[in-house]
Parts: sequence; structure tokens; C-alpha cells
Amino acid sequence: MRVLVCGGDGFCGWPTALHLSARGFDVAIVDNLARREWDVELGTQSLLPIAPFPDRLRRWEELTGRRIRGYVGDLTDADWLMDVLQKERPDGIVHFGEQRSAPYSMIDRKHAVFTQVNNIVGTLNILYGIKEIVPECHLVKLGTMGEYGTPNIDIEEGYIEIHHKGRSDVLPYPKQPGSMYHLSKVHDSHNIHFCCRTWGIAATDLNQGVVYGVQTPETAMDPVLYNRFDTDDVFGTALNRFVAEAAAGHDLTVYGRGGQTRGFIQIRDTVRCIELALVHPAQPGEFRVFNQFTEQFAVRDLADRVARVAPEFGLQPRVVHLPNPRVEREEHYYNAAHTRLIELGLEPHLLDDALIRELLELALRYKDRILVDKLLPRVSWR
Amino acid sequence: MRVLVCGGDGFCGWPTALHLSARGFDVAIVDNLARREWDVELGTQSLLPIAPFPDRLRRWEELTGRRIRGYVGDLTDADWLMDVLQKERPDGIVHFGEQRSAPYSMIDRKHAVFTQVNNIVGTLNILYGIKEIVPECHLVKLGTMGEYGTPNIDIEEGYIEIHHKGRSDVLPYPKQPGSMYHLSKVHDSHNIHFCCRTWGIAATDLNQGVVYGVQTPETAMDPVLYNRFDTDDVFGTALNRFVAEAAAGHDLTVYGRGGQTRGFIQIRDTVRCIELALVHPAQPGEFRVFNQFTEQFAVRDLADRVARVAPEFGLQPRVVHLPNPRVEREEHYYNAAHTRLIELGLEPHLLDDALIRELLELALRYKDRILVDKLLPRVSWR
Repeated sequence: MRVLVCGGDGFCGWPTALHLSARGFDVAIVDNLARREWDVELGTQSLLPIAPFPDRLRRWEELTGRRIRGYVGDLTDADWLMDVLQKERPDGIVHFGEQRSAPYSMIDRKHAVFTQVNNIVGTLNILYGIKEIVPECHLVKLGTMGEYGTPNIDIEEGYIEIHHKGRSDVLPYPKQPGSMYHLSKVHDSHNIHFCCRTWGIAATDLNQGVVYGVQTPETAMDPVLYNRFDTDDVFGTALNRFVAEAAAGHDLTVYGRGGQTRGFIQIRDTVRCIELALVHPAQPGEFRVFNQFTEQFAVRDLADRVARVAPEFGLQPRVVHLPNPRVEREEHYYNAAHTRLIELGLEPHLLDDALIRELLELALRYKDRILVDKLLPRVSWR
Repeated sequence: MRVLVCGGDGFCGWPTALHLSARGFDVAIVDNLARREWDVELGTQSLLPIAPFPDRLRRWEELTGRRIRGYVGDLTDADWLMDVLQKERPDGIVHFGEQRSAPYSMIDRKHAVFTQVNNIVGTLNILYGIKEIVPECHLVKLGTMGEYGTPNIDIEEGYIEIHHKGRSDVLPYPKQPGSMYHLSKVHDSHNIHFCCRTWGIAATDLNQGVVYGVQTPETAMDPVLYNRFDTDDVFGTALNRFVAEAAAGHDLTVYGRGGQTRGFIQIRDTVRCIELALVHPAQPGEFRVFNQFTEQFAVRDLADRVARVAPEFGLQPRVVHLPNPRVEREEHYYNAAHTRLIELGLEPHLLDDALIRELLELALRYKDRILVDKLLPRVSWR
């Protein structure tokens, strides 16, 4: 199967490209390397040093004999993208190629507009590219559990059967996203759904939870293949960020009361979910939605968990509660379905102390690279 | 009350600006005059000749002594918009300033991307402008009934109470829009809702039905104040288009079986709805949704109705069914709530033969300006 991984140089995209390549998929990567530029813009860096994109591809081929073709360019450049699609004619497109940080989208008006335009136009271009060049191609698009917000009823996988005034229908699940970034994913979902209904495109929208962990068996093979490990306030996410704080001798910083409950998934399961979606594609015209996470956690419980393991490494972090820079409920009902990927064969790696130990070891090994002044939140939602 | 009407040179915006000005509102208009450019691009024209924008403003002041300030510029130009908001400091912003044609948005990839970027960025800029410059300002935003699609349950006004697995919540009504344009309005609605929740902005989203009719008492005062009358396949809409077809001696062209049922509203009620929304504003933080239409019609019934009145003018149009250029259900359940504007005092002008006669008279008076080769649909959804 020929697969194009958009955003294949990023935190999820890179391990996914390697995972697929290792399993015999014929992989090409499209990436504009924007994620590396945002590090420069924000004065941050990955805790693990990451090799230049061409070096990554070369090393992978040296070690495995498998070639991943790399295209450096921007999804919002339609002419360029159409050329790539003509050349590659993929059977599947895995689309990670978006600005994916909620705080980045909330920096100011310019970043909000950039995030929405970048994400929407890139996805529209892919949709038109599929329609015009590879109509049989299956789109596997990364959404986010954050599209749903925190409703007071169970969250289902994309759709909900509503009974109302004596009638019923199965309708798209209502969305209450919590940032300009999360909004962009909701817009994408509506756009993709329309193109499936109207043009018969086959698409799977993977509403992914918060990803934790860093390495996969493939990225761990060699330092040149290492994955990025974001610890800063803008691109770092819960758990990974707590681990970095512990390694740096910093307090573990929970936003507000920390009762915010979310779905979480290990990076090792992310790559497997993508593979499962590709080998069990959606039908033509189908807009299929899977909730891609394996466990729910309240943020304060994750901090407590890291604090409990850290003393094994001689660390004694305190868990502190900061004024919440975001506007969100800090105590709420949360129960989200996530059975469809399990039905396709996902065997979840649940969070255990061994994984936290592995992350703490990594963080301690590179702790000189943790930028302590980039741990506290600098972006306010208000 | 100081009101800024964005898109105030257009089909709904111009009569609204005059209506508000006539009733003592202190009105300014923002418009980039794009609608006039799209006529040039598409080789079409308004059936009624429309005067240049500055002439319209001058004539209104001559006739009434009331001054409407005009700003020609683009809502996607944030710096310019912020300057206007600093100068005007409006109490209310009425936002018609978007690309509003579904067929235009479906011409090709470029027009789809343009429509979504133009509409989303303009609205985001207004939202940031309100947040940063006039936080008390009430946003009155034009949405569309087309955001809802044609679900198999009753359509409510923006929200629906959902009972699910023993729990319940009031959530945004699920959206199934039918074109790249309608999608852009759904994206706007989600963006505005977020800004209300997060920043405390007060907003009213008016999900308007298909507007018919042309003149209001103010636009009819003088030929220089005449409103536009679109009859072409791209910007013309049901009823007005059927009238133009009848006047041109053309068949009345129903798309598909014509069982497509939609909410409709007269332009005289549009302007009154905006006034009602302004004088009864939303609360800070409230995202209020009204369904702005007065009656439901199936498209074929409107064609039949025009065909029934036309013989009074010596016209004998046939109603014909064309292959549907759109992808939409042609027979479906449709029952949409529309009580909230009535509760605020709207007294609907329902469709009657007198209105059809008035439109036929107008169309016959200017029938040499009807471009017969621009009546049949040229844009396909597929």
C-alpha cells in the first residue's frame, strides 16, 4: 500500500512513517518543516535533539534498507501538492500536517488566523487533490478529542442518535471545542464530512486524545531517528511536561484544580491506530470517526503519578496548582466511547510506572536541554 | 445606537443600512464592493441597475438629511478594520460581509478556499476587534438555515436538549451544511460561540432562510437607492429567479424533483429582524441563535405559484425539472422552529400574490437586462 504521511517530520508523523515503513508500506512524507520553525519562533527546543529531516530519511534507509521519499513543501500550496499526488498516487493519505498546539493558536489574532487558515486550506487542498487525482484514496485525518469539549452526556464516536419530539436521527455529535486550534479541527471535520457525502471520498477522522511517551521501537533504533520531546508551555502536553518538570527539579504545574479529564494515548498506540485505519479503510462516501485514545485521566492524577515515581530517581517534585491560563471547566463529567479501534485489533499500552521511568530516564539524560523559563504558561486564553 | 453594517452595499446589507438609518440609528457601512466585482467575474448583472456606492450614500443624505458613513475596505485586512472600529466605536456590528453564494463556493477549489478563508478571517477579525476595542459591542451575525441541512428531526434555534444514556445536556444543534459556502457559516458559528464563552462577547447568530423580494420602502424611494435583484444561476435564489425566468419568457427551472423544502423570508422582514436583534441585544457571554425565516416552502411550489400569477401579465411559463446540479435530498422531512424573532415583535410579511406581481412588474420593466444565458445552472456540486 502506497501511503503519503503529511506532517511526517513531526512528533506523531515521524514515528508513524517509520512504523508503516517497517511493516512494508511504501511510504512518502510531505512536510514543510514548520514545526522546527516554531521552535525557533518560540525560543524552545525538543528535549531530545532531533536530526535534520534529510538525515533522518538517510539513516532509516541505511539501517533498514527501506526508502521513505521526502517532499518538503506546504499543503496550502495547491499546485505543489497536486504535483506530489500525481507523482505518488497514494492509496492512503495520513494527514498530521497541521498546526497542532492550542496555546500557539491563542497567542494572538495573527496566530489564531494562521492556525485556522493553515489547517483548513491544507485539508481542503488534500480533499480536492483526492477528488481530482486519486479518488479511490483513503484519507486518514487526525482530529482531536478536544473537538467534543466537555458535554454533560457521554461522548460517542463522531455521531449520536438523537430522539426528539417523537422522531429520531443519527447526527454528527455536537462540538464545543476549547481553542482556536481545536476549532480548526472541528472545521476540518465538517469539511471532510461534506466531501464524503458529496464526492464519495472515503475518510477516517481520528479524534485523538493527548499523546504521551516519545519513542517507538523504530525511533529508538538510532539517535538520528529520535523523536521530538516537547516540554515547553506551548507545544508540551500533560505527562511529558510533568516528567520534564520533575527532571529539571521544578514543581509539577497543574493548571487550575486539575480535574480536567481527557482521553490519553501512548505514542506506540498512535502509530498502531493509523496502521489499523489504513488496513481497514472507510468505504467510498463514508466519513468514519474513531475516538483514538485508550484511557481517561484527570490532569492532577497524572501529576501525582509522576510525583510518585520521581523519588526513585532522587527527585522530590511538588505538585502545585497554577491559575488556569485556559478557559475550561476544571471539574466536569467525562465519559467518552473508544471501542472502534479496539474492535479493529488495537491492544492498548496502558500507562504504567515503567513508561514514566523510561521518560524520566530520557529527560534526565538530556536535562541540560530543558529550558526552565519555558515551562510556565505564557499564553492566556483571555 | 451606533451601528456598523459590514457588507452594507449588498443585497441584504444596503436595505438594512437604510432601514436602520431611517429609524434613527447612527449607521456606518463597511464594504469592499466585492459583490460588484463578482458580477464582472461571472459576466452577470443585477436586473435593477444599481448606483455606485458613493452615489447611494449621497442620495440618501439628500433625500432624508441622514448621513451614513461609508468605509471601503476589506474585513480580512485586520489593521484597516481596527482603525475603523477605533473611529466608529459601534454599539452594534451587523455582519453581512461575506461571500454568500453556494454555487460560487462550488465553482472550483480556488473559489471554495476563497469563500472559506474570506468568511472565516473576516469574522475572526471582527471578533478580535470587538474583544480588543469595543468589548461591549453586540455582534449581529448573518448565518444561514443551510447550516442545519435536512435532518430527520425538528430543527431548533441553535441548540437542542439531548437525552442520552440517562443523562442530558443542551448542546449546539448538529450541523450538516450542503456547500463550501454553508460550511463557512458553520465554521463562523463555532468560532463566534467560542469567543462568547471565552471572552464574554455578546452575539446573535441569525440563521436566515432564503431571502426573496427586492425593495424596501427606503430603497424604493429613488432609483439611485434601488436594491440589487440577482437573477443568475450563481447569485440568484428561488422565487426571485423564477420571476426573472417568467419575465424573460423562459421556463421556470426547478432543480431535480423540487421537494427541497427551505425556510424563506421577505427582504422587508430581514431588515426588521436585524433591528429587533439590535434593540434586544444578547447578554455578555451569550451566543444567541435565531432562525430568521417566516415560512417554509418546497421549491417546486414556489415555481408553481409564480406560474399561476404570470398569466396576469400575458406570460405562460412552464415549470420544468432540470437534473439537479447540487447534491441534496429532493424529498425529506423539514420542520424548523422560528419563534424567537416573533417573540421579539416580528410581524411577518407572508408571501402573497401581490408580492409576486410587484416582482414581475419590476422584472418586466427591466427585462432587457436579464441575461438569458445566465439562467441555467453552470456550477455542478460533483
